[in-house]
Amino acid sequence: MDGERNGLKAKVPFHPRRRINVYGLPLLPPNNQGEKDDLHVELWHACAGPSVYVPRAGEKVLYFPQGHIEQLDACMNQDGIMEMPIYNLPSKILCRVMHVQLKVEPGTDEVFAQITLIPEAEQDEESLEHRNYQPLPQKAYPVFFSKKLTPSDTSTHGGFSIPKRHVDDGCLPPLDMSQQTPQQELVAIDLHGFEWRFRHIYRGQPKRHLLTSGWSTFLTSKKLLAGDEFIFLRGEKGELRLGIRRATTVLKYTSTSIISGHSMRHGILASAFHAFSTRSMFNVNYRPWSISSEFIISFDRYMKSAQIDYCIGTRFRMRLEGEECAEQRPSGTIISIEDVDHTRWPNSEWRCLKVKWYHTAGENFHPERVCPWNIEPTEFRIKKRPSILHNQKKARTDDVSSPGFPTLLMDGMWSGSIKYESQSSSGVLQGQEDSDTDGNQPDALRKPLPHCLPLNHSWDSMQQPIQNQREIGAAPFSGGQVESLGLHNSWST
Amino acid sequence: MDGERNGLKAKVPFHPRRRINVYGLPLLPPNNQGEKDDLHVELWHACAGPSVYVPRAGEKVLYFPQGHIEQLDACMNQDGIMEMPIYNLPSKILCRVMHVQLKVEPGTDEVFAQITLIPEAEQDEESLEHRNYQPLPQKAYPVFFSKKLTPSDTSTHGGFSIPKRHVDDGCLPPLDMSQQTPQQELVAIDLHGFEWRFRHIYRGQPKRHLLTSGWSTFLTSKKLLAGDEFIFLRGEKGELRLGIRRATTVLKYTSTSIISGHSMRHGILASAFHAFSTRSMFNVNYRPWSISSEFIISFDRYMKSAQIDYCIGTRFRMRLEGEECAEQRPSGTIISIEDVDHTRWPNSEWRCLKVKWYHTAGENFHPERVCPWNIEPTEFRIKKRPSILHNQKKARTDDVSSPGFPTLLMDGMWSGSIKYESQSSSGVLQGQEDSDTDGNQPDALRKPLPHCLPLNHSWDSMQQPIQNQREIGAAPFSGGQVESLGLHNSWST
Repeated sequence: MDGERNGLKAKVPFHPRRRINVYGLPLLPPNNQGEKDDLHVELWHACAGPSVYVPRAGEKVLYFPQGHIEQLDACMNQDGIMEMPIYNLPSKILCRVMHVQLKVEPGTDEVFAQITLIPEAEQDEESLEHRNYQPLPQKAYPVFFSKKLTPSDTSTHGGFSIPKRHVDDGCLPPLDMSQQTPQQELVAIDLHGFEWRFRHIYRGQPKRHLLTSGWSTFLTSKKLLAGDEFIFLRGEKGELRLGIRRATTVLKYTSTSIISGHSMRHGILASAFHAFSTRSMFNVNYRPWSISSEFIISFDRYMKSAQIDYCIGTRFRMRLEGEECAEQRPSGTIISIEDVDHTRWPNSEWRCLKVKWYHTAGENFHPERVCPWNIEPTEFRIKKRPSILHNQKKARTDDVSSPGFPTLLMDGMWSGSIKYESQSSSGVLQGQEDSDTDGNQPDALRKPLPHCLPLNHSWDSMQQPIQNQREIGAAPFSGGQVESLGLHNSWST
Repeated sequence: MDGERNGLKAKVPFHPRRRINVYGLPLLPPNNQGEKDDLHVELWHACAGPSVYVPRAGEKVLYFPQGHIEQLDACMNQDGIMEMPIYNLPSKILCRVMHVQLKVEPGTDEVFAQITLIPEAEQDEESLEHRNYQPLPQKAYPVFFSKKLTPSDTSTHGGFSIPKRHVDDGCLPPLDMSQQTPQQELVAIDLHGFEWRFRHIYRGQPKRHLLTSGWSTFLTSKKLLAGDEFIFLRGEKGELRLGIRRATTVLKYTSTSIISGHSMRHGILASAFHAFSTRSMFNVNYRPWSISSEFIISFDRYMKSAQIDYCIGTRFRMRLEGEECAEQRPSGTIISIEDVDHTRWPNSEWRCLKVKWYHTAGENFHPERVCPWNIEPTEFRIKKRPSILHNQKKARTDDVSSPGFPTLLMDGMWSGSIKYESQSSSGVLQGQEDSDTDGNQPDALRKPLPHCLPLNHSWDSMQQPIQNQREIGAAPFSGGQVESLGLHNSWST
């Protein structure tokens, strides 16, 4: 395929060149072209959401097992409450990214990243070794267009109406407007490597750009509904790529029950624990868009967030990615700082901030609990000691030695069991806490789940910290040290 | 729905009454009727294969973790070789069945059983407590018909041709043959509770029974191909049920990667280990038809098998379920008795018998390794000590204390790691051994995977044991004690 060919009129029937069977499996092996070129990577990111952070090989990241369990719960149905031990695992693990594979589900086109992590020998992020870490430079977002399908786009008799601005933006090869009815054949490749052919035509009253022949086949094959997004990308050499992003994740309803959900919870925690104990690799199938916070975040972003002293009353904004990649910035206030599950994950930063939103109108989901790295305080102070919960590393040991805590079931792996858990006030299980607690587990069908955009915590984009703000002195959260760095925030508040 | 209604002529359009969306999800909630009546259970068993053993609540069973891992490998694609510890788990666990749910995948109609097990406090199957165990009485198989779809059945313009014998068997309500063109509407419910309507007509040259209107919709919705089986069941009150069994499992190609395969392996072993250590419940999603041996077998069946002294040279037959539930009995000889993976599962009975088949013609898969309970020796002797590997319980401890074995990584959970494994002769990983070794992991697309029928090891169906047969004295397999019980076998050999 080359750029010139896109300008030719259709001479072949409009159907995907690679035949697929009823289960969306290629009858011919895919060309693997996708794995090799940058455009595939760009298309993958466009389908994932252009602002979704996926780490790259070589980066240092923080991995939060609680978030991994939350993603699991968002992706599959519960299969009963089962006894679950407390794994003796820290709530965050500092890792090096060994390998990243950008993948796509064969049946549904849902994208996910298979990330291979290895825990760092030095887990103290304050150590000199980590202090000198230089993050990889950020990559630019690809140029593409994304359109939410209208009922007209998804009707069986019509075609796809291309917004004129995307034609003007150069996302499509230009039509020869000297023709009486300007038209051309477009050949675009999806993430599986399948070719799709469409007739691009300029016609109607008023005149519109349309994809006609081939569109219906595409709609049916991809099982698209109104509200899903169609993504179109044009490379520098004119190569065309296409992808989709569904309005609601279908994973929960299409996922197969290869092993029980209970075993999957064990699997996440046991593999992380094994990797942590032996400094060996483990794999994470990462779908950060399925929940409202990332659980693998860059070391750089974590450290910038950790320098902020989050207090009750702190006002903040959160960047959300809405429909057609539009950015939103709802604002709110921190109303409480507390563990989601003190027994299983004491002093964890995962969703430790309870918040109140000023405006929750619109379709976007506003989580009741957020992680520190999700938000951008509009007023804050800097801590001398960076970690929001600086006593975290000793927390599990302290708990175990405290009166009333059961003796260790196993040296090493587990530090308690459900028997203790059922007497606690939280009454939730490790691995199930998020589906039972307040609003952290949204119904994906009810509200769209926007993805929190990564914050740009560079100091010159932050507002001046407030001096002499009221301290939150109660344990387990330490009060911060007030500093004045003369910073400013480019946002209007 | 009642029986009389089936005899009425069609007055409504032929389409499934319950609408389903593109992902096979009900737009109306299913009626849950399936969970309540016996016919649902019978239909489920017909779809699973009528001779597949699924334990019932209250039964005692033996659970083999190796088989569970093998099922996992058969159901999903590998996602890379990762370091895997050796879990300190016995190769078989004596359990009580707490709960069984007969389930069906929403997208593919593949059936599976979610079985909740609890390990018994007394693991010695020879103990008095277990000796007095009375197995539950066997249930009769349901009456149904099953037909492998022909290319004609699956063509878009035709209908489904019903073999006359199934009409004569009473699987369908009788037609009024006094009509010029005898016909009726059939309304049948599938495992999801969806109603499907067909016109049953007797016509053509020569006259045939056909399902016409409604058949094409059913074919398309269920994505059926030639070779898949269509199952039809009629209850005592005339209620009609239908189901499907695919020629090849689509699980491997449709399963979503919610967590990594490596984490799933951890999940199976960690949840079993936790349950075993704390005598708590764990769930198994059971698909014994995906591999060629069951890994949950009844206590009764295990004990009968364990009394037989399996020797090299022993001839046997194995009952296989072929197409359209036809039974086959290929025969072979035991050529070796050895561990699949001595490091990870020393002295395990799982596939410990290497066999040679006399005739491997036909489409059925003949495994190179079988479990003792899969086969029926045509000549054998009885052991005084029932277990084929009577030193199993001490095996792991012995290994650990032997020179060269690494010290325990963790007290309790693990007893070694891949570092030891990579120096061993087998070179395979726990949880991956079956995909790499000789022929235990068939390509489900290449050959149909028949399910081994449960054996009827009642003493009056067995052949007379051979006296003075050559003993297999080499460790780890003990020679059996020769006994003569004057038994006979009803098979012709």
